[in-house]
Amino acid sequence: MELTKPLDALNISKGQSVLVEFKTGVQYQGRLETFDIHLNLVIDDAQELVEGNVKRKLGRMLIRGDQVKFILPFQK
Amino acid sequence: MELTKPLDALNISKGQSVLVEFKTGVQYQGRLETFDIHLNLVIDDAQELVEGNVKRKLGRMLIRGDQVKFILPFQK
Amino acid sequence: MELTKPLDALNISKGQSVLVEFKTGVQYQGRLETFDIHLNLVIDDAQELVEGNVKRKLGRMLIRGDQVKFILPFQK
Amino acid sequence: MELTKPLDALNISKGQSVLVEFKTGVQYQGRLETFDIHLNLVIDDAQELVEGNVKRKLGRMLIRGDQVKFILPFQK
Amino acid sequence: MELTKPLDALNISKGQSVLVEFKTGVQYQGRLETFDIHLNLVIDDAQELVEGNVKRKLGRMLIRGDQVKFILPFQK
Amino acid sequence: MELTKPLDALNISKGQSVLVEFKTGVQYQGRLETFDIHLNLVIDDAQELVEGNVKRKLGRMLIRGDQVKFILPFQK
Amino acid sequence: MELTKPLDALNISKGQSVLVEFKTGVQYQGRLETFDIHLNLVIDDAQELVEGNVKRKLGRMLIRGDQVKFILPFQK
Repeated sequence: MELTKPLDALNISKGQSVLVEFKTGVQYQGRLETFDIHLNLVIDDAQELVEGNVKRKLGRMLIRGDQVKFILPFQK
Repeated sequence: MELTKPLDALNISKGQSVLVEFKTGVQYQGRLETFDIHLNLVIDDAQELVEGNVKRKLGRMLIRGDQVKFILPFQK
Repeated sequence: MELTKPLDALNISKGQSVLVEFKTGVQYQGRLETFDIHLNLVIDDAQELVEGNVKRKLGRMLIRGDQVKFILPFQK
Repeated sequence: MELTKPLDALNISKGQSVLVEFKTGVQYQGRLETFDIHLNLVIDDAQELVEGNVKRKLGRMLIRGDQVKFILPFQK
Repeated sequence: MELTKPLDALNISKGQSVLVEFKTGVQYQGRLETFDIHLNLVIDDAQELVEGNVKRKLGRMLIRGDQVKFILPFQK
Repeated sequence: MELTKPLDALNISKGQSVLVEFKTGVQYQGRLETFDIHLNLVIDDAQELVEGNVKRKLGRMLIRGDQVKFILPFQK
Repeated sequence: MELTKPLDALNISKGQSVLVEFKTGVQYQGRLETFDIHLNLVIDDAQELVEGNVKRKLGRMLIRGDQVKFILPFQK
């Protein structure tokens, strides 16, 4: 699917698994529920990954957008 | 409950226990009273947790939104 | 008293003692005179606390809001 | 091609390979899909480069604009 | 005098000595000439204080507001 | 030529060589193509200079304005 | 001359020597050509001073306002 703006990558990922890497390098993987233009995100069944290993299971999680380094959206 | 935007996760958490992790890694757990779009929050019966251990009991607490890394809202 | 937005916690604290923790961890305790939406604050009879010990008595003090980590308002 | 504003350098790079250097010094190379005025970017077939060596293959990737130090756009 | 907003503490300090503590901990003391809503300040006969000792005499000085940690205004 | 605002220094530098020093101290020298009010810049035939020595040749380069410490524009 | 707002201190300094101290502590001295509300500045015949010693002569220089800690304007 062709994207016309960056947040389209999140629109097509709703209900799908995404991976969010924070500025600290820690990653959070979960099913994307919703997001806004600040990149605030809610993901569900979230897992915290440190160097690829699951450290914590966090359930539903509201992420503050300014923490985000990049997001790997749904891979079409 | 389906969320249509990230702050809905806080709307459904009013009066419920939430866990707020700061950018420093320190956590604050308490009953959510109110919040705004900057993620400024008031929680009550707040406890400060350092590596999972209660360090301070803080009562009612107004958190500046820019300190927030993520929030674990009410787990539906 | 029920709060409808975070700054209500400061409204009900005017003339009362509040404790302000800075991002550095240093705390300032004093009687809240006034505040604005940036969390700029004026407190009076301010004391600086480092690890709970009084370090300086500062009288009236204007705090820049972006320094604030959290505020313990009047405990109803 | 003459550019009349900085983001024109990205407009002419759509569908082309670009290299994005982050403030950390880490680089991401991929085919530019879309961008916005904050320099939020989506690149595809992204590779992470650390000191010039491929470290991770990331597929489609949404980059938060505030992480960007500079971008090497399509070299006309 | 009762204050109705934080910057009133500066209004009543014009022409009076104020002490400005920077985020670095360094202090500047001088006679307040003028200020704006960003807490940009001009003080005159400014002295730089490091741990309470005068390090430099700086004359008239324009301070960028984002450097300010707190200000001790005129003590009524 | 007299300047009436800071960005005039860039207007008169279009097509000329400029030197951009980043907050990190690293410098980029190239021919200025275009800029905007955020100090986002595109320079061409860019060279990266570390302590005055050429480290990388980067071709056309889009610089994010918030990285800039200062710019040495065209020296009239 | 009485100032009614902080930037008046720069208005009366046009064509005069000013000293700009950066957040890093490095200083730049030169003749003020122009400025804007962000404290972006152009100074001419600029010299970089490290601990009071001239390190570099930079000619005309455009300074990004967010680098500024304070400015010593024209001393009336």
